[in-house]
Amino acid sequence: MSDMTKESLDVLEDWLKADKSINPKDAPRLQKLLADTPIKDVIALVERHNAVRAALALRLLPRQRSIEVFDALDSAHQADLIDELGNTEVFEFFDELDPDDRVSLLDELPAEIADRLLRSLDQDERDVTGVVLGYPKGSIGRRMSPQVPEIYREMTVDEALARVRETADNLETIYTLPVTRKDRRLVGVISFRTLFTARGNRLVEDLMSDPVFAYAHDDAEETARWFMPLDFLAMPIVDESTRLVGILTWDDAADIVEEEDTEDSARSGGTEALQQPYMSTPLLKLVRSRIVWLLVLAVSALLTVKVLDSFEDTLAAAVVLSLFIPLLTGTGGNTGNQAATTVTRALALGDVRSKDFMQVLWRELRVGLVLGSLLGALGFILATFVYGLDIGIVIGLTLLLICTMSATVGGLMPILAKAIGADPAVFSNPFISTFCDATGLIIYFLIAKSVLGL
Amino acid sequence: MSDMTKESLDVLEDWLKADKSINPKDAPRLQKLLADTPIKDVIALVERHNAVRAALALRLLPRQRSIEVFDALDSAHQADLIDELGNTEVFEFFDELDPDDRVSLLDELPAEIADRLLRSLDQDERDVTGVVLGYPKGSIGRRMSPQVPEIYREMTVDEALARVRETADNLETIYTLPVTRKDRRLVGVISFRTLFTARGNRLVEDLMSDPVFAYAHDDAEETARWFMPLDFLAMPIVDESTRLVGILTWDDAADIVEEEDTEDSARSGGTEALQQPYMSTPLLKLVRSRIVWLLVLAVSALLTVKVLDSFEDTLAAAVVLSLFIPLLTGTGGNTGNQAATTVTRALALGDVRSKDFMQVLWRELRVGLVLGSLLGALGFILATFVYGLDIGIVIGLTLLLICTMSATVGGLMPILAKAIGADPAVFSNPFISTFCDATGLIIYFLIAKSVLGL
Repeated sequence: MSDMTKESLDVLEDWLKADKSINPKDAPRLQKLLADTPIKDVIALVERHNAVRAALALRLLPRQRSIEVFDALDSAHQADLIDELGNTEVFEFFDELDPDDRVSLLDELPAEIADRLLRSLDQDERDVTGVVLGYPKGSIGRRMSPQVPEIYREMTVDEALARVRETADNLETIYTLPVTRKDRRLVGVISFRTLFTARGNRLVEDLMSDPVFAYAHDDAEETARWFMPLDFLAMPIVDESTRLVGILTWDDAADIVEEEDTEDSARSGGTEALQQPYMSTPLLKLVRSRIVWLLVLAVSALLTVKVLDSFEDTLAAAVVLSLFIPLLTGTGGNTGNQAATTVTRALALGDVRSKDFMQVLWRELRVGLVLGSLLGALGFILATFVYGLDIGIVIGLTLLLICTMSATVGGLMPILAKAIGADPAVFSNPFISTFCDATGLIIYFLIAKSVLGL
Repeated sequence: MSDMTKESLDVLEDWLKADKSINPKDAPRLQKLLADTPIKDVIALVERHNAVRAALALRLLPRQRSIEVFDALDSAHQADLIDELGNTEVFEFFDELDPDDRVSLLDELPAEIADRLLRSLDQDERDVTGVVLGYPKGSIGRRMSPQVPEIYREMTVDEALARVRETADNLETIYTLPVTRKDRRLVGVISFRTLFTARGNRLVEDLMSDPVFAYAHDDAEETARWFMPLDFLAMPIVDESTRLVGILTWDDAADIVEEEDTEDSARSGGTEALQQPYMSTPLLKLVRSRIVWLLVLAVSALLTVKVLDSFEDTLAAAVVLSLFIPLLTGTGGNTGNQAATTVTRALALGDVRSKDFMQVLWRELRVGLVLGSLLGALGFILATFVYGLDIGIVIGLTLLLICTMSATVGGLMPILAKAIGADPAVFSNPFISTFCDATGLIIYFLIAKSVLGL
């Protein structure tokens, strides 16, 4: 970033922080700063501020820039902004969004406002938006663009190029062109590059390749996950009878993957994902995203109180045992989390599937045994040295068993979650910690009782 | 997925699992299956198997398909495969990779093999690969494609289109075209779409727009993170004097983001990221990715033993206190993890920056207070009910303080990590749990001593 840009950003930041209405005599200077700052920095600036301030900034931007900035915001942030902006601005921003982005925004809005926005569109735009709205939430049809060119297999290269040129204004992309039969059934895909570099009288069907495509009802996350590594710019979306209904572009797929990664990252930390940037999220939304999880986890942790309660006599007889409780439960939790994190990510990326259950069990059991042997040996030596042989044996054995158990349970839990239709990340880290805490304590006290003869 | 595809995949999977060399009489059937299965499923199949088996599958694929599949694999997996494949195949695969992918693969290989591969390229390809190799690891220059068209501002649309057509074969993308002056200084960008739909005698400089670009020495992750939300297909990369040196395409940016997300997800679970799919990772690599972390965390957890040891008299006087240890440390850990996860993700996405330290402190302090009041009240009621008023007060107060402290520390730790140049995810969840465990115990016993008068 150049020094000048940095300085402009600081001025803009200070102005937004002041949080007052625009002083008319400052407006021209701020307008100039906003117009000259690179668009990526303006987006970052607007993203970091709440709706009231973001709206101020949007109003001072030149029209085309303000549209680009609004377009780049998360749907939840856009929805917050709607309240702050005037009708004319809102209708214009809404009209400029792609149909799939419009639908994401509508999902965030109260029905009444959503209705009003939809009615502000002209008939054509309302129709294409309606196509996307018709598919269920969570399906890829809901995230596609319904605006695809009509390229038929019988066309020549010149005819196809002419068709693209005529309709380019209405298309989300012209670079990946689905090829259909006259009845709109998908038969191939041709890249614009191929078309552009081929001789004009050749037939599209001789140049096209086999289509990689998805069904509109397919799950959005799964589809985006397998689509991204192929490095295609776009792919056709079809209905059950393979008729072309839309196109999925790489940027929409990337958005889906980013949303899901943010959600997985949040859940594996025991919180719900924020729907908008942290700094512009109201405090109460932060509390809401955490409190339910925290309560559920705290209530599950009552199990550990129960377990310890039932071993109270053992604890009273050997208070030294309580010194190791956080170390042992912590290590169990860490081992379980490692396995769970690895397998959850592998499930998300499609590297592990539900039917790999037995293979994962066998892998994690062995990994856990190796980790447990190493930690157990270390624990045995240290504990023997400070607290004597008996305690050394108890700690060493407990670590061995806890690591083996935790790695296995941690690795399998995400797969089980997926099998019952839950998000693997939900059953990931915090739940595994709590589970490993309780089970680990039982293992610990059973070993202690038998070794120490209590 | 159609039933036929599913069946083919099962046959292929069984064959790869059998792990023997190809029975000559099976080869034609397997070859046909592999040629007919959708490419995305073949990639998934190859990704899930170790190098020996993956090499078998690659050999049976038609030439063009095997190149596509090899291209889609992670560099670490490609490197493993190099050992299993013959020289001719390896040289061919290597030659077909983009220069930036070649460099990623070279980074994974022993110097001697890397040298041999480089020497197998013809002079032109070796030169473009050399450009990328010249930038430091972790810079965006290392991930760009050096093959960019020469479009000058003085050209007409027709001239520019002709230039693209001539050089299309050697370009990574033709859809985003950087525009330069004769001395190669970047002055603008024009999309192919604009060029294609404009009148042929217009000048490029009248149609181009201000370039969004990055410097070759910029950090790869940061650049990819701000580039992705802009939804551009590509952007120019320049040297310090803004001379055009390459282009970054969306798919390379997406790869960088995915790698970093995988690394963050792994580290926040207390393990190192695997460099290749879970199922094809050797067992020892799994152990290696976890053991160092686990040891460091276990040694840090010795702190909790130390803390408890110093409160041994209090523990002996009131054994009931030990019952709540896992519940309290667990809740502290969970609250800390929630804050850390949220802020780590916000840092990664650029929503929070280091200079927001005070704002994050103030936000998390308040969130922690609200969460602590709710949990503290609940804990007070439950503990009073079962163990009496004294214990109720201790538990309630402890939960209030632990939640406030953990949320604040958890939110600030990732920012501090970033400030000292460490990966925020490293100091994230498991370290915060251990830290909160030890501090939480001190809070707990200090409160207990003063309330119970021990």
